[in-house]
Amino acid sequence: MNGADALITTLADNGVTACFANPGTSEMQFVSALDREPRMRSVLCLFEGVATGAADGYGRMAGKPACTLLHLGAGYANGGANLHNARRAGTPLVNVIGDHATYHRQYDAPLNSDIAGWAAPNSLWVKSAESADTVGPLAAEAVRASFGAPGGCASLILPADSAWTETAVTGPVLTPAPRVQVTADAAAAIAARIKAAKKPVILMGGSTCRDTGVRQAGRIAATGVRVLTDTFVARLARGAGRFAPDKMMYFGEMALADLEGVDLMVLVETTEPVAFFAYPDRPSLLTPEGCATVSLCGREADGVGALQALADALGAPEAAPVEALELPAMPIGAQNPYTLGASIARHMPDNAIVSDDAVTAGLPIFQSTKTARPHDWLMLTGGAIGQGIPLAIGAAVACPDRKVLSLNGDGAAMYTVQGLWTIAREQLDVCVVVFANHAYRILNIEMGRTGAGNPGPAAKKLLDLGDPRIDWVSLAGGLGLPAERCSTVEEFDAAFERAMNQTGPRFIEAAL
Amino acid sequence: MNGADALITTLADNGVTACFANPGTSEMQFVSALDREPRMRSVLCLFEGVATGAADGYGRMAGKPACTLLHLGAGYANGGANLHNARRAGTPLVNVIGDHATYHRQYDAPLNSDIAGWAAPNSLWVKSAESADTVGPLAAEAVRASFGAPGGCASLILPADSAWTETAVTGPVLTPAPRVQVTADAAAAIAARIKAAKKPVILMGGSTCRDTGVRQAGRIAATGVRVLTDTFVARLARGAGRFAPDKMMYFGEMALADLEGVDLMVLVETTEPVAFFAYPDRPSLLTPEGCATVSLCGREADGVGALQALADALGAPEAAPVEALELPAMPIGAQNPYTLGASIARHMPDNAIVSDDAVTAGLPIFQSTKTARPHDWLMLTGGAIGQGIPLAIGAAVACPDRKVLSLNGDGAAMYTVQGLWTIAREQLDVCVVVFANHAYRILNIEMGRTGAGNPGPAAKKLLDLGDPRIDWVSLAGGLGLPAERCSTVEEFDAAFERAMNQTGPRFIEAAL
Repeated sequence: MNGADALITTLADNGVTACFANPGTSEMQFVSALDREPRMRSVLCLFEGVATGAADGYGRMAGKPACTLLHLGAGYANGGANLHNARRAGTPLVNVIGDHATYHRQYDAPLNSDIAGWAAPNSLWVKSAESADTVGPLAAEAVRASFGAPGGCASLILPADSAWTETAVTGPVLTPAPRVQVTADAAAAIAARIKAAKKPVILMGGSTCRDTGVRQAGRIAATGVRVLTDTFVARLARGAGRFAPDKMMYFGEMALADLEGVDLMVLVETTEPVAFFAYPDRPSLLTPEGCATVSLCGREADGVGALQALADALGAPEAAPVEALELPAMPIGAQNPYTLGASIARHMPDNAIVSDDAVTAGLPIFQSTKTARPHDWLMLTGGAIGQGIPLAIGAAVACPDRKVLSLNGDGAAMYTVQGLWTIAREQLDVCVVVFANHAYRILNIEMGRTGAGNPGPAAKKLLDLGDPRIDWVSLAGGLGLPAERCSTVEEFDAAFERAMNQTGPRFIEAAL
Repeated sequence: MNGADALITTLADNGVTACFANPGTSEMQFVSALDREPRMRSVLCLFEGVATGAADGYGRMAGKPACTLLHLGAGYANGGANLHNARRAGTPLVNVIGDHATYHRQYDAPLNSDIAGWAAPNSLWVKSAESADTVGPLAAEAVRASFGAPGGCASLILPADSAWTETAVTGPVLTPAPRVQVTADAAAAIAARIKAAKKPVILMGGSTCRDTGVRQAGRIAATGVRVLTDTFVARLARGAGRFAPDKMMYFGEMALADLEGVDLMVLVETTEPVAFFAYPDRPSLLTPEGCATVSLCGREADGVGALQALADALGAPEAAPVEALELPAMPIGAQNPYTLGASIARHMPDNAIVSDDAVTAGLPIFQSTKTARPHDWLMLTGGAIGQGIPLAIGAAVACPDRKVLSLNGDGAAMYTVQGLWTIAREQLDVCVVVFANHAYRILNIEMGRTGAGNPGPAAKKLLDLGDPRIDWVSLAGGLGLPAERCSTVEEFDAAFERAMNQTGPRFIEAAL
């Protein structure tokens, strides 16, 4: 057994059984060791941003970390943006970052760089295994650290000689630290404040947006308290049979209008709402004037348990109203995000997983699917576009029996387009939809909002993707996916229905 | 004038007239200001790694910085790997990294991150313009800093409010610090050591590999001293009419065999040669036993002047022998990197620029073109693959009258495949060739060398790109490039000749 064997065995012993990899020379021992550990499934990604986004998607759905395999600092950097999203999602995730042999670093060979420095901004935990004997124990520590509370990225640097040197040491099986519990008294105190308020709201985020938390939130809503989620959450359980909380609006002035008159905001696994971007003369904080905020618990706590305690303290009923299944009619007319959303809502199967990186098309589709069959919706938590395809890969690996929809703006999809190949290679049950409006449409809106005025010719050229038009069917086909283009919503509805009624990879370009 | 105007005006005043951009909301003021500064050419890239690699290519060819426009920390991270290559190349380059408004940072909105922390490992200089009045002066400082000695990345963080606030302050025009000069006495002392040595060699890197340096190196070689370059240099002037130095070999044991008996190594704008990677039981340092090393100058100095002084001190002739134009015959037989190299050598026009990210195909083509028409060869300085297409974009923007060849392994090309679209949009005179061997071929070689043994099924799956086979013609066509696949070297020779005899974008998949 060498250090690489000790690493993979320890990871598998601690429940890490998926590795999204883009290896190089310094990772060859790890690659070789995969042949000796059948518990670990390895998935090749042709770009590190695909690997890290896939690990995020896996972690969101599996509730435990996958690992990535990255090639030194430059490989880490390529994966950095989707690790930023993972950090914001609180996803447990273990990066294995290969490095030069310990004794080789001093020579500053071309690929040498400050790996720990690069990993620090995104990582809960960064350590380097400086000898073969430390690899296993540090791997166990990394897995535990990744569960955080909230979870996040643990980055284990693996020098090549630590990987190739013999060792007898594997790491222990470690139990993640339990989450902080909110007491019944603390919940009762907040219940009293809610009862005393004129217009209280609950704002929830983090792990409370999963099925069990949403159920407790529904109980609270049944007492007459409005419940909202953060604008972007890692994973929201929704659709028929579930309570549907509202959602904080994206644009600050709309959010403030929506919250007008609210005098108490109770925060559950989240913090005071803030605008996604600053704009001249618009507020950063999105709590209305005169609104007090109080935290039921932060993201380090068991928010689901806290919600349950709060619901009990409010005297909420055990069974609260939920959405009934209600599917839109066959959409007709113009193809746009609303009609496309209706089509998606009609055909999305039970228990689907939606990876939403659809930017301007996303909200209409989200709204259209409120009463569709029950599903999980995965959102862009960190604002770094290029998450949609990778996240779908990881979700499909974590949940092979569930249909995965990857919804993408064309600008966003280009960032990590290499992921299409991995979907084809692994024959994942993923239907990728790209909404091709041939523009960074959101920036056309944002430009006015930032006070930058109307774009002139030079500015327009930086917002437009239409010259040349990307032929998404060629692109997806070239990467091995069965692909088609739909120019009308009738075509889309038929194509999407077909895609939902089969398993395996599928690509649809929805022309907008 | 707002801060964004002050920035672009100051950049242009300081000679920065190309901007490779992937903007977001926080950069809208910069985008808008482009309409008011006609000296700045902006080029949209659909992924930040394309933008940073293009800025590297521009800087290598223009000898002055381009700027990038990146969207907060996540945008920087996406560009990080090619900035690592730029750092290793010593390329002057100014990153403009948009940030949240200064007062908005405290709220830790989703895209917030430690930008300065992320930029530090790759940057010579990182500062944030905390007010509109500081933007112009800091921009001037950034440009000067980027020239370094050697050059590198200067990263200017631009908070949104610094960009949108009015200001009357632009930055001054600053002159980069001059490079250190090597005295005639110092050169004479080293000349004496060379004369006293049995088997001296010169190892040169950095700026000495450009035309003027290679000419001085040729003079030294004419005195009987062997001259080599580093394995990977930013830009090597070569071909007919130029002296052709040897090249340090990539694999350490071959390099040491090649240097056997060398008793003195004179370093010019480089450091002691080291293995690219460490391997068990193989040396890291590539100076043979008993070989003394002496530095004529480091990369902070004027290496060309130093070489000239050394040549003079050695009594070298003013005019030294150069390679005569010698073009291979029409290649026949199997299509492989050698026959393809012959075809490329035959048709490459005068003054071409080659961006080499061809990995295993690269060296045979490099060797085949030694006596081709004069050209510049741009290499992968930092080992982070995915440089070839972006670098070609920047070179073509810097040198619109020169033909640019982008040579890429298929694994490498996938990293930044988005760059093909920019080549099409800007109608750059770039011919992209992808050598499709459907594998990370180099890793099949490296696996054995690292002692990891022969790959089993799991390992093989991480080295193989053949399932599914990427259809590069579909991919390139989908991104707007005229594209064709060549399965025989006769087909390739005809296609490549056609590509060389026309201007504008062209894509060739060479099936291997």
